[in-house]
Amino acid sequence: MSADGDLPVGYADVAAAAARLAGVAHRTPVMTSRSVDARVGAEVFFKCESFQRAGAFKFRGAYNALARLDEAARRRGVLTFSSGNHAQALALAGRLLGVRIVVVMPADAPAVKLAATRGYGAEVLTYDKDATTREALGARIAAEQGLAIVPPFDHPDVVAGQGTAAKELLEEVGPLDWLFVPCGGGGLISGCALAAAALAPGCRVIGIEPAAGDDATRSFHTGTLQTCRNPETVADGARTSSLGKITFPLVLRYVHDMATVTDPELLRAMLYLWERMKIVVEPTGALGAAGLFEGKAEVRGARVGVVVSGGNADVAAICRLL
Amino acid sequence: MSADGDLPVGYADVAAAAARLAGVAHRTPVMTSRSVDARVGAEVFFKCESFQRAGAFKFRGAYNALARLDEAARRRGVLTFSSGNHAQALALAGRLLGVRIVVVMPADAPAVKLAATRGYGAEVLTYDKDATTREALGARIAAEQGLAIVPPFDHPDVVAGQGTAAKELLEEVGPLDWLFVPCGGGGLISGCALAAAALAPGCRVIGIEPAAGDDATRSFHTGTLQTCRNPETVADGARTSSLGKITFPLVLRYVHDMATVTDPELLRAMLYLWERMKIVVEPTGALGAAGLFEGKAEVRGARVGVVVSGGNADVAAICRLL
Repeated sequence: MSADGDLPVGYADVAAAAARLAGVAHRTPVMTSRSVDARVGAEVFFKCESFQRAGAFKFRGAYNALARLDEAARRRGVLTFSSGNHAQALALAGRLLGVRIVVVMPADAPAVKLAATRGYGAEVLTYDKDATTREALGARIAAEQGLAIVPPFDHPDVVAGQGTAAKELLEEVGPLDWLFVPCGGGGLISGCALAAAALAPGCRVIGIEPAAGDDATRSFHTGTLQTCRNPETVADGARTSSLGKITFPLVLRYVHDMATVTDPELLRAMLYLWERMKIVVEPTGALGAAGLFEGKAEVRGARVGVVVSGGNADVAAICRLL
Repeated sequence: MSADGDLPVGYADVAAAAARLAGVAHRTPVMTSRSVDARVGAEVFFKCESFQRAGAFKFRGAYNALARLDEAARRRGVLTFSSGNHAQALALAGRLLGVRIVVVMPADAPAVKLAATRGYGAEVLTYDKDATTREALGARIAAEQGLAIVPPFDHPDVVAGQGTAAKELLEEVGPLDWLFVPCGGGGLISGCALAAAALAPGCRVIGIEPAAGDDATRSFHTGTLQTCRNPETVADGARTSSLGKITFPLVLRYVHDMATVTDPELLRAMLYLWERMKIVVEPTGALGAAGLFEGKAEVRGARVGVVVSGGNADVAAICRLL
């Protein structure tokens, strides 16, 4: 792993990840909208990871991490703990690379998520949230079975893979003044901020997280890692309790600012993307757009990128929210 | 207007329309889906007119018709009767070309549609459905004010414009064995069938309409124009009472078959497009996909095109339907 000063991941790793992903991950479309440009008075480019394989940017990091494992580790298999897009992305990457994937999920995870993850060929182990934590159970099973662990965000290869989304965007549209990125555990934003620092040094990267789970914003502004246990938000992809050991220093170094949006603001932004831009975006995926629409940075006259991180919306569930 | 034998519109008109639309209409994306291909056992290409300007293929025909008017007619203005996508498309085309647009709509049309049409700069005249018909009122106003009428589908320039959607698709992906096209008044399907006959003579074009408004299917199979008054269907863009004087002969000559889908089949197909392909499609826009999914043609092993005709979905209204 090439280092970036004292940090365990640098732009060279993002570039190497892009080479591994070429022809495997989708080069997702960059979409524009006259309505959005008129609304915010800027030129806005949406990088639509909702059209990525398995429906979210997560495939980039998952595939990159699996592709980096040596033969012996691949033969033994890989474990992760996630009930969301990372699990499905890793399951798909495992199928493509012939690697056994074990996913630890809470027993009360939505049935559709268990089915989708199994549908991609992963083995799903459920656990009782009251009796143990997913980290403890995962570590025990991984040790017993010799499985490598590929966590959802706090891993250099995962961060490097996620950064390829911003690399593609900047290579396609040229330098940007602002880049709005959804933030949960910080894998996406730290990879994207690394790419922006290398490819568009004047670009200010701003992370957007749900107000109910504002740990990253507080961490960023205090310089000390803050946590938020089980935040209640519709942005299920951003219910992480904190940034990670790897992602927090990257966010501190490369991100310009962090801000929050409320759930009603987030749902309004999501609905706008559905109705005006005709793209299905999940709530978490609309965080960047919500930050833009709610004026979390002064973008008038600027060139602005927005990462739309995922499209795995359960339409029936969203209809109940709206 | 170049003729095609005894018909008032031919492929040369489609090609001329494409030249007029170049740089004005969007060249909409062609999307593919591994899930869809696996589901139907074919190679499927979706031409996504949901991403067209004003959210539907209608912009093609509306702009083409306005662009064909001479200077004097443009100065006087244009009238249409429509409460749907054609009205908004014509309003936008009028704004771009500096032509006054008058739209006759029933007084009880949804407020959002009146607002959207006015938002594009058209004048909206409402009328009482019990007291008069839109055709009678429209004809009277047009005569009084010297306005040209650009109807929603039964017009050579409108048909020629709509055909550019299939022209683009075939030029991008090459010959197809099947092309599924939503059918209301037949403007889209007759233009697309004209283009297919010229560019991919082996391609069988199949029109799909809602079962509750099966007038075109009955007309096609009997060879005599059938009507269906105010069909009750969620496919609001296909609530036309019959094919037109111009579109019916084109459908008879160039279309291979017509079939219907029920509203539940249509909504299932629409939801599949939303959740799997991550694109917002309105019910009418999913007619072609529903025909494909419901096996209205034997497509196994074939190369299949599907026109996704529009994306102007009122999400709140659709949530009530689902």
